[in-house]
Amino acid sequence: MVKTVVIVMAMKAEAQPFIDHLDLQKDADRFHKGLRAECYSGTYKGETKVHLVLNGQCHKYGVDIVGTVGGAVTTFAAVQALSPDLVINAGTCGGFRALGGEVGSIYLCTSFLNHDRRIAIPGFDAFGVGELNTFDLNPELLAQVGAQSGVVSTGNSLDVTKEDEGYIKKHKATCKDMEGAAVAYMCDQLSVPMFALKSVTDIVDGEHPTPEEFLKNLGTAAKSLQQALPKVLSFIAEKPFQA
Amino acid sequence: MVKTVVIVMAMKAEAQPFIDHLDLQKDADRFHKGLRAECYSGTYKGETKVHLVLNGQCHKYGVDIVGTVGGAVTTFAAVQALSPDLVINAGTCGGFRALGGEVGSIYLCTSFLNHDRRIAIPGFDAFGVGELNTFDLNPELLAQVGAQSGVVSTGNSLDVTKEDEGYIKKHKATCKDMEGAAVAYMCDQLSVPMFALKSVTDIVDGEHPTPEEFLKNLGTAAKSLQQALPKVLSFIAEKPFQA
Repeated sequence: MVKTVVIVMAMKAEAQPFIDHLDLQKDADRFHKGLRAECYSGTYKGETKVHLVLNGQCHKYGVDIVGTVGGAVTTFAAVQALSPDLVINAGTCGGFRALGGEVGSIYLCTSFLNHDRRIAIPGFDAFGVGELNTFDLNPELLAQVGAQSGVVSTGNSLDVTKEDEGYIKKHKATCKDMEGAAVAYMCDQLSVPMFALKSVTDIVDGEHPTPEEFLKNLGTAAKSLQQALPKVLSFIAEKPFQA
Repeated sequence: MVKTVVIVMAMKAEAQPFIDHLDLQKDADRFHKGLRAECYSGTYKGETKVHLVLNGQCHKYGVDIVGTVGGAVTTFAAVQALSPDLVINAGTCGGFRALGGEVGSIYLCTSFLNHDRRIAIPGFDAFGVGELNTFDLNPELLAQVGAQSGVVSTGNSLDVTKEDEGYIKKHKATCKDMEGAAVAYMCDQLSVPMFALKSVTDIVDGEHPTPEEFLKNLGTAAKSLQQALPKVLSFIAEKPFQA
């Protein structure tokens, strides 16, 4: 059973329905002074401590801090401050029609890679892509959540270049996001079990431009995350959970 | 006068000549257990505390952790643990012949941007590029070091795509690196003065493939950093330093 879970999310709009649903309370002093990351804390069924952490709003540009820098720093700060048994990176992603993805599809992922870190020096090339398998998910969890098993490919852009697409296709990624591999990397480095819960907002290999489709479906995807997350919490709070 | 300076570097090979020169000692317990970042500490002329921090070696792929995730996390951990008055991101970079760059050129930089974070949503687009000016450098420092003033453009790949090149040219970047903007961003968020000291290993708009040229010139560039860094320390240890 998981005693303390940290849920790392990038966008407030993705997180708000879940914060409301669990009545999580903002904890202003959890992190180093000046760090923009935010922590919302509470319990699930009175037993499992739940900390939802956001990267926060950029001090300079005033938008949610998205991308790998924010995801990694928030994850490190949260692991350091909260000593979780489990980290979940929850959020939206792009899906792929060619692999059966649809807007609203939910994926649970334990495989990660980066599609925008090309370093053509032996040794550094593998580090750049940074393939990582965090652990084997219990198939019962997939069934309980109504999710598919997936692979997250992470990059710091909302779009994908031809170069990015090559990595995504080669690794049969089902979810294209902007934080997952960074959160996974920090958890793996710090020996904390981790998986991702991703809800599809847009179809990367579809006909609609990503920014338009993303904004149109963000609310729906956030609601679908809010429905899936308690199912995940219910499972990890009650079943033996092996990393 | 700066009392405590943190120098953030990505590669051990870049840092070793300077560690030897100042006889810095490894301090194994500075950071959260499990974090791969390394800290080498000492003093400059008995007065200024100097902490050289490296991202460390990847626990999974065994190479130096390069790129923005490592740079940002190490910077955050170092600011949190060491409360520096000043952070310097020192390292190698690609230079541009079109802007007068040559192998061995030394730049001091207070302007940063990212060339691989394309987010075509209003507000997020500017955050993605993340232009940042840390402060105005004293021209005397440039003269003392024999450096030019420069602009760092950061991305997580050793090469550049056509898309990347567009941002680099638009912002007249003189130094293409893999960490600078991430180190600058964390320092700006945490209100710590910061600049970069960059030594050119390869010419991005030249005729040689980057990986080959980089590896060939890494040793020379590390030596040139080792010569420039004490000049920087001498200046900041003795002159009033305003952020």
